[in-house]
Amino acid sequence: MLENLRIVLIGTSHNGNIGSTARAMKTMGINDLVLVEPKSFDPNNLCDDAIAMASGATDLLASAKVVSTFEQAIEDCAVVMGASARSRHLPWPLMHPRKAAAKSMEVLPRGQKVALVLGRERTGLTNDELAMCQVHIHIPANPDYASLNVAAAAQVLCYEVRMAALDHQQALEPEYEGDWGVSWDNELATQGEMNGFFQHLEETLVDIQFLDPNNPKQLMPRLRRLFQRAMPDKVEVNILRGILKMVLRNNKQ
Amino acid sequence: MLENLRIVLIGTSHNGNIGSTARAMKTMGINDLVLVEPKSFDPNNLCDDAIAMASGATDLLASAKVVSTFEQAIEDCAVVMGASARSRHLPWPLMHPRKAAAKSMEVLPRGQKVALVLGRERTGLTNDELAMCQVHIHIPANPDYASLNVAAAAQVLCYEVRMAALDHQQALEPEYEGDWGVSWDNELATQGEMNGFFQHLEETLVDIQFLDPNNPKQLMPRLRRLFQRAMPDKVEVNILRGILKMVLRNNKQ
Repeated sequence: MLENLRIVLIGTSHNGNIGSTARAMKTMGINDLVLVEPKSFDPNNLCDDAIAMASGATDLLASAKVVSTFEQAIEDCAVVMGASARSRHLPWPLMHPRKAAAKSMEVLPRGQKVALVLGRERTGLTNDELAMCQVHIHIPANPDYASLNVAAAAQVLCYEVRMAALDHQQALEPEYEGDWGVSWDNELATQGEMNGFFQHLEETLVDIQFLDPNNPKQLMPRLRRLFQRAMPDKVEVNILRGILKMVLRNNKQ
Repeated sequence: MLENLRIVLIGTSHNGNIGSTARAMKTMGINDLVLVEPKSFDPNNLCDDAIAMASGATDLLASAKVVSTFEQAIEDCAVVMGASARSRHLPWPLMHPRKAAAKSMEVLPRGQKVALVLGRERTGLTNDELAMCQVHIHIPANPDYASLNVAAAAQVLCYEVRMAALDHQQALEPEYEGDWGVSWDNELATQGEMNGFFQHLEETLVDIQFLDPNNPKQLMPRLRRLFQRAMPDKVEVNILRGILKMVLRNNKQ
């Protein structure tokens, strides 16, 4: 599905930026790069700057298409969205990258092409170019310094589209969190095991005279809250109880 | 709130990457940069590479703190999250950037510091360094080419935290979409005005013999669907009716 996403760079001056953009694209699984009137880039004779910044993504540079007009770059696209830093006199459909990515997911899975367009390093897209986009994308940057590098902007846009695509395919790799999910390496301890641990812990704390059973205050509830929050697995509980056992044994000697 | 977010770079080789990271941070309103054992960076004697890549963010470079251990870099932080490309032998709390950003929002508004940590250009963070992070952050990159540039990764992380912060403060600037929202420059046309337009349109299409009233097919429903979807404003409807008026007048001559 991401094969239907195209990045279009218009009037790029620095070949290093074309290289960094290729790298940003490839890390997100996006390969279709079209360059409209780059200042000096030649896919058949890659310069050192572009190669250095592309790192392992020189294949994208070599297969990049260079065209002389924006119209040619987007001829076969169903949707064209252009990055715009400034708010224009004439309001235009305007989306944050996340919404633009979600919008792309209405089009890409049907096999139609979406172009995300980035302008010149200093001046961005012209008003005429922006008028050829159905949607303007605004990265909600720091209003006092909104100057994202063109490859950095490409990285954000490609990342959002990849996230949306993985979400669409329900293919986001699992995160581990609170309960560590299904990918954790050991089974979680049962509450019976946890209670066994807490009894062991309390007994130990009394034994070492850290906990006064006649004036326990909030010590055990606080320790329960701590360890329960961590949701230990069976191995971890065994380790903790091993420690308690040693503490008790040493204390009794 | 973003003043409590710190970016920590460990063992960075290329000063250009430190410059790009400073720029990425500043575009997202994040200013606290700490460098652990950079190969050759000196905030009191900035080199050309760093300055060129930082663009207008040299102030961040000059105020960057250089320390010799990771411990020093995170001493005053409540939460430390490290970027990790690989899955480790020992599973660890692992989050995508979006979840990590949401998690940061549980901490930053209370005035406590969160550090996002990025490792060396080639080798990332060591296992020992990752063990000092409560959470590992995984950018769900292309498994065949997951090599994000360190500043590109910083851009993605800073962007996600900024999005989460704006969302938290309900300060995301409005998007315009379907109904263009409240920020559109003109009032939307009423349905009475739209119906007036559709009658005018139909009359015109009959007049120019494009629409056969005895065999209208789906022409008007399709045109209705098109124009209703665009939700024109009053000025746009006036323009459209101005066009129809001219077409009718010319056709009657």
